[in-house]
Amino acid sequence: MSAYLSRFLPILSWGRSYNARSFGNDMVAAVIVTIMLIPQSLAYALLAGLPPEAGLYASIAPIILYAVFGTSRALAVGPVAVVSLMTAAALANIAEQGTMGYAVAALSLAALSGVMLLALGVFRLGFIANFLSHPVIAGFITASGIIIAASQLKHVLGINAEGHNLLEIGGSLITHLTQIHWITALIGVSATAFLFWVRKGLKPLLRRMGLGAGAADVIAKAGPVAAVVATTLAVWGLDLAARGVKIVGDVPQSLPPLTLPSFSPELLGQLLLPAFLISIIGFVESISVAQTLAAKKRQRIDPDQELIGLGAANIAASLTGGFPVTGGFSRSVVNFDAGAETPAAGAFTAVGLAIAAVALTPLIFFLPKATLAATIIVAVLSLVDFSILKRSWAYSKADFSAVLATILLTLGVGVEAGVSAGVALSVLLHLYKSSRPHIAEVGLVPGTEHFRNVLRHKVQTDPHVLTLRVDESLYFANARFLEDSIHDRVAANKNIRHVILQCTAINEIDLSALESLEAINNRLAEMDVKLHLSEVKGPVMDRLQRSHFLDQLTGKVFLTQFEAAGAVRAYTAAV
Amino acid sequence: MSAYLSRFLPILSWGRSYNARSFGNDMVAAVIVTIMLIPQSLAYALLAGLPPEAGLYASIAPIILYAVFGTSRALAVGPVAVVSLMTAAALANIAEQGTMGYAVAALSLAALSGVMLLALGVFRLGFIANFLSHPVIAGFITASGIIIAASQLKHVLGINAEGHNLLEIGGSLITHLTQIHWITALIGVSATAFLFWVRKGLKPLLRRMGLGAGAADVIAKAGPVAAVVATTLAVWGLDLAARGVKIVGDVPQSLPPLTLPSFSPELLGQLLLPAFLISIIGFVESISVAQTLAAKKRQRIDPDQELIGLGAANIAASLTGGFPVTGGFSRSVVNFDAGAETPAAGAFTAVGLAIAAVALTPLIFFLPKATLAATIIVAVLSLVDFSILKRSWAYSKADFSAVLATILLTLGVGVEAGVSAGVALSVLLHLYKSSRPHIAEVGLVPGTEHFRNVLRHKVQTDPHVLTLRVDESLYFANARFLEDSIHDRVAANKNIRHVILQCTAINEIDLSALESLEAINNRLAEMDVKLHLSEVKGPVMDRLQRSHFLDQLTGKVFLTQFEAAGAVRAYTAAV
Repeated sequence: MSAYLSRFLPILSWGRSYNARSFGNDMVAAVIVTIMLIPQSLAYALLAGLPPEAGLYASIAPIILYAVFGTSRALAVGPVAVVSLMTAAALANIAEQGTMGYAVAALSLAALSGVMLLALGVFRLGFIANFLSHPVIAGFITASGIIIAASQLKHVLGINAEGHNLLEIGGSLITHLTQIHWITALIGVSATAFLFWVRKGLKPLLRRMGLGAGAADVIAKAGPVAAVVATTLAVWGLDLAARGVKIVGDVPQSLPPLTLPSFSPELLGQLLLPAFLISIIGFVESISVAQTLAAKKRQRIDPDQELIGLGAANIAASLTGGFPVTGGFSRSVVNFDAGAETPAAGAFTAVGLAIAAVALTPLIFFLPKATLAATIIVAVLSLVDFSILKRSWAYSKADFSAVLATILLTLGVGVEAGVSAGVALSVLLHLYKSSRPHIAEVGLVPGTEHFRNVLRHKVQTDPHVLTLRVDESLYFANARFLEDSIHDRVAANKNIRHVILQCTAINEIDLSALESLEAINNRLAEMDVKLHLSEVKGPVMDRLQRSHFLDQLTGKVFLTQFEAAGAVRAYTAAV
Repeated sequence: MSAYLSRFLPILSWGRSYNARSFGNDMVAAVIVTIMLIPQSLAYALLAGLPPEAGLYASIAPIILYAVFGTSRALAVGPVAVVSLMTAAALANIAEQGTMGYAVAALSLAALSGVMLLALGVFRLGFIANFLSHPVIAGFITASGIIIAASQLKHVLGINAEGHNLLEIGGSLITHLTQIHWITALIGVSATAFLFWVRKGLKPLLRRMGLGAGAADVIAKAGPVAAVVATTLAVWGLDLAARGVKIVGDVPQSLPPLTLPSFSPELLGQLLLPAFLISIIGFVESISVAQTLAAKKRQRIDPDQELIGLGAANIAASLTGGFPVTGGFSRSVVNFDAGAETPAAGAFTAVGLAIAAVALTPLIFFLPKATLAATIIVAVLSLVDFSILKRSWAYSKADFSAVLATILLTLGVGVEAGVSAGVALSVLLHLYKSSRPHIAEVGLVPGTEHFRNVLRHKVQTDPHVLTLRVDESLYFANARFLEDSIHDRVAANKNIRHVILQCTAINEIDLSALESLEAINNRLAEMDVKLHLSEVKGPVMDRLQRSHFLDQLTGKVFLTQFEAAGAVRAYTAAV
């Protein structure tokens, strides 16, 4: 009973052995992550088109719920770049940014996504995330990073621009380029340059000054906080808000509010597909991070339980003024590197952010939006990595075309079209490949009992016997291909009296393939040719025995191909 | 050049050797098929919701075009039951039956389907028809047969009834049952009973009377003609039309007219999906017949050229007052059995039907619609075969669920929903199965070099070594499953120092799976466990060598599993 409960409430297993040392480590990690999360949360709320406080709220309750239900010890849940972009894209056609309707739709999106994740977890359907192939995800994240960076340029330059794909955003930016606000641009560009320098130049500098790798990393991660403090002070000191620099402004000093998402059927209908895509993308992103970190400590991640954890986190977000969340890469890595031992570190982070939401919000009144945009740009450009195109081109043209379609459609049309096309194309290409399996005509390697491809090896064959090895399980998509292949080869050579199918690589024969085998058997019989099988695997044979095929088979089933060839040779010699 | 032309114009190859004997055989077959096709064509036009002459027109030009472009020597192209039903379903929401708009939409549907078939053939995409699994087709045809039979009951009983699925039709029939027209019902029920008797009772009777099987079959096939003649004479002689029996009435005495389908974008948009489904279903039905007949004479069918032949036939139908056509089962079998040697038999049939359209149409003025409905009912009930449910249940639950979904959705919702659901479900189930491949832990069978499943065989294993055999190609859908499986097994056993993947059954590793292998390698490295591969196939190895994986691999690649186990054992012993 307790083991059963522990599976669904992982907190019961780690909570029991919690001690002072774990508490100390978790506290240190929590403080570091809290400092890093404050600007990040505000920035991702901006990206999602929501007021800045929504980013803080989305980081508090969800972290706690994930700590109760999730299986990763170090995962930090909250708003992340790609999901925030997808949120903005999903809500674009539903309400105007800044309206109440928009904020409520964001709650509904989080609720819907939470319910979907929960359902996928409860019904153990996490495997469907597998249909998002690695290259498609890589292409999608790269393209999303570009769109996100482009979408933030307007804040950096202090102009207006709209759009949810690169063409729209680019066109809009160019149109408005003459309206550039120079003070904002000065802040934005310096902040961006500073953050790039922190990322690329500061860490090596600190290392050269004798700091440890860990400490250098933590200081570098605090770069955004420094940028926030410096630009906020500048705007406040020089009264730049009065000169047109857009600032964060009034943020309510409050704990996360209790909120209720709208469940209007029309709204839910519009959000169904986006919520599904957000759930899957969020899950895939989160579980990759969780598994990478778990492996370092030989811990175990249960994908279905992760779905439940993320589902609970999203439902929590929807009830506390947030928006869709998932496990973030950078925050989780910081949490892990800072020494977090248990999900309690996440809970302490939540407390830290709650204190920030209550006490610190007045301090960010003068924070320029350009600084937040700069932190986003620098963060997401690290996601952009076109090497996937080169790697997939070198390795497999099918993977390459799926990646290219994903990138082009994400950039040119939008995130939903891009990811859907990537999934559809990779499934179709996979089915296409397995629908035309490699079929080798094989012959005996002289002096051995081995049969190899006649095209690659010097082998012995019998003019009356055609021996084929199919390198794929037989199922509906390749059943007819097999029929055609055999029929063509036999029709082309009137000498053939026996066909032997060597079944070494056949792991399954479905009912369509069984019927194709029956048709092959019957058609060969019409041509007075016998069909034999050899080396049929146990489970496949079990299944064949449940059908009438073996009774109808004109030839025999042989244990080994060598035995089959011998028996058939003896038979043709006798005739 | 000539061989190239012959591929695209099969007529060039058989036309060259055409002689008097072939002509004689083809003529005999043509006469028999013509007699059989006259009532059938009229009936299927009725089923498609079109005037009876459309059925004749749809059998003339399409046959000739197929004779030029098709590769089957015996296939007879024209209206068939399932495609006619699908035509009626597709046009139901577009126009009212009996209107000009309805007839024009039927032309557009044939044109669109023809273009699609042609395109599939030219771009050699015929393989997509393979995604329609045998059990799904069987279920679909059974369910369609039931719907067709139900839809014809209204003509047999002389009442009104509407609907495109069994629930609608059944409900409508029951509602109108009080309005039954007794004279019509008498004709309809007797004709149905007579035709059933012809099919089940007459043939054995003729055989007992000493007739040959072929002759008995031809006479039995002429049953519908007898029913048509008898009931037409009865209606004419007793003036039953005046007493409310619905008759075929005026049919223009004319060769097929030249017609132009509408290409309004709105109409084509609505017809896109139905046309696609009709193309695929028609193609699958046609090619099965063609291949079955070709096998009997060791002839070859080229599926892509068949698509071109059927595409040309449908375009011809759209230009000559017809509707979607395909290769029919019963007419092709009759054609074959009657001795047709070449597609010229089809051309002669077309001439016969053209003569009928010009000369015989006044004779069918008094033909009761109830008789045509009876011929349809008797013909389609032979398609109904629920044994597929039993067979698939016994053989494979996955196939069973796809069939059941197809049957229930076709009956309950309609033909398009049924066939789409069947395809989607079979693809998903296939992907699901291959996404959780069989992974066996293997050990050495003592005294041999063979490695077998530890759960099934008494084998030797090493506590520091985990050897796994994956019985499936590695691709995106199972890549993460592999990661999880290996991670779980290694996390559960702290003794493991080496993992060996035996790659015997791996025919392909796509980029996602490669990245999973890299992740597995890295995570195992974090746990201080080495990863080795054994028995990697040549093409898989070629591809791996194009990546950096082999450089990063912590262990080695071994030619055989036996060699791998030996090397690793030596290594752990030394440490």
